[in-house]
Amino acid sequence: MRALWLENQQLVLREDVPMPSPPPGEALVRVLTAGICNTDVELTRGYYPYAGIPGHEFVGLVEEGPDALRGRRVVGEINAVCGHCEACTSGRPTHCENRNVLGIIGRNGTFAEYLTLPAANLHVVPDNLSTERAVFAEPLAAALEIQEQIEVRESDRVLVIGDGKLAQLVARSLALTGCRLTGTGHHREKLDLLERLGIRTMSADAVPLRSFDITVECSGASSGFALARTAVRPRGTMVMKSTYAGDLTVNASSLVVDEITLIGSRCGPFEPALQLLAEQKIDPTDLIHARYPLRDALAAFEHAQRAGVLKVLVDCSV
Amino acid sequence: MRALWLENQQLVLREDVPMPSPPPGEALVRVLTAGICNTDVELTRGYYPYAGIPGHEFVGLVEEGPDALRGRRVVGEINAVCGHCEACTSGRPTHCENRNVLGIIGRNGTFAEYLTLPAANLHVVPDNLSTERAVFAEPLAAALEIQEQIEVRESDRVLVIGDGKLAQLVARSLALTGCRLTGTGHHREKLDLLERLGIRTMSADAVPLRSFDITVECSGASSGFALARTAVRPRGTMVMKSTYAGDLTVNASSLVVDEITLIGSRCGPFEPALQLLAEQKIDPTDLIHARYPLRDALAAFEHAQRAGVLKVLVDCSV
Repeated sequence: MRALWLENQQLVLREDVPMPSPPPGEALVRVLTAGICNTDVELTRGYYPYAGIPGHEFVGLVEEGPDALRGRRVVGEINAVCGHCEACTSGRPTHCENRNVLGIIGRNGTFAEYLTLPAANLHVVPDNLSTERAVFAEPLAAALEIQEQIEVRESDRVLVIGDGKLAQLVARSLALTGCRLTGTGHHREKLDLLERLGIRTMSADAVPLRSFDITVECSGASSGFALARTAVRPRGTMVMKSTYAGDLTVNASSLVVDEITLIGSRCGPFEPALQLLAEQKIDPTDLIHARYPLRDALAAFEHAQRAGVLKVLVDCSV
Repeated sequence: MRALWLENQQLVLREDVPMPSPPPGEALVRVLTAGICNTDVELTRGYYPYAGIPGHEFVGLVEEGPDALRGRRVVGEINAVCGHCEACTSGRPTHCENRNVLGIIGRNGTFAEYLTLPAANLHVVPDNLSTERAVFAEPLAAALEIQEQIEVRESDRVLVIGDGKLAQLVARSLALTGCRLTGTGHHREKLDLLERLGIRTMSADAVPLRSFDITVECSGASSGFALARTAVRPRGTMVMKSTYAGDLTVNASSLVVDEITLIGSRCGPFEPALQLLAEQKIDPTDLIHARYPLRDALAAFEHAQRAGVLKVLVDCSV
């Protein structure tokens, strides 16, 4: 089959990748559309030594699998877990010590004609939800993870740092809580997308010190982390949604003196994400900047890395 | 009056320090006994540019103040607050933006014949609680702050890192929760104090990776922070009780991927601390390694910095 292939940080388009054959418990999924995430780009820069088909955001059609899924459009949770380690049996399956992760760790991903995933990972896409919206289920679920981890109250002053793809979904999902939300970033045209939705934005220079109950770092830049720290009030909460290349330097004493809570946040719940998309409470379509067929996936990756570009989709079934 | 004085990181014993005169709302306290804390030692090394009388752990006798306090033995909360800033009016007075802090920031401390503090900061020492035990109220309150910030369950595997004064009180207070507690540190004789109380200990080399629900860093060393990180399980909680000289380097991506919660923890509640000491549920007397009269306070500080030494008390009224 045709697939994008990553090896030694080099992407190539291959026509000779063997069709996957689903092992017991897994489904064979024909990929309809897949989204390019910053993590995919980072893999090409050596963030993690992955070799294989990249990609983890997708909508597909189940060709082989349980009756309830066959012929249905699905999205899929990306962590394939063992089910019997301490994390799995303690209700933290996304932290399974034996997991592989779609297109990231030890499992071929989405930029291909077909993929396999455990049937238990798949969620049926509601009929009234378009494929181009449903492909945002995975990153929106990650945004919703914040509300699984901390309570966000209407009275909370919340700062979202970053204006990229993930920050956009984080800000839009937090806006639904009714909290006192502010977005900040370096790109006026991206902040304007939030302004159009009624979300207040300001430039990073204008963010007041020690004035937010919650800061959410979605920029992936060390300067964003520094801003998250200076903007949060004593006893406030910093949520870290982004991964970082290399180590960060932290004034740990100030975290102690100010009794800051710092929370790392990753994958989240799919069903609420699908529901918010289906009800159009979150509309991600303004984030789609380009679509490419799978045969032009290399151009899609090039496009996704241009300045100012948000989501690029790869249509894998055309 | 006689007092220990810190200036330009130099400690001197002075006989000519003016007697403090309590402003409205403050009490005049004759200091009976004061404890030397690592923070005091760090101030002599430039942790914070403080000039004045150091010291913040004390038991004293109220000589001037409200009727309810006059003639009573008291301990005192160390943050003197404004009462009208955002932190004060939001229930976080220990984070008052205008605070001064006994013997640490802008307010003379305890290694003196007399001190003043707002009457509202003072807590009466129960008659059945000795002065040498009551002087541990402040650091024990700091240890109890952990349980104000997070719920510690009986099923939780908790690792306390460090075997010094604060670590000893943290471990002893956490033991009362019934959690599955382990202490670790570099000094066998200090760990033995915990073992004698039935608290399991192990050497740092033997601590298993990713196996604790909660790790509590009380060592103040970057190696202790690193151990707290490697020992905590995914989605676990790291509590930071110690301040650090300089910055720490953190692999922030791993905090995100493992969804770690990191919490800075400082001053805590005095009343529960006094109660635990009065009921002898926590006995700190084995931590007292030496007592000196105020006139020998310089020798007391020298003693407190010797290897293996835990609490050194300074008796200020003799």
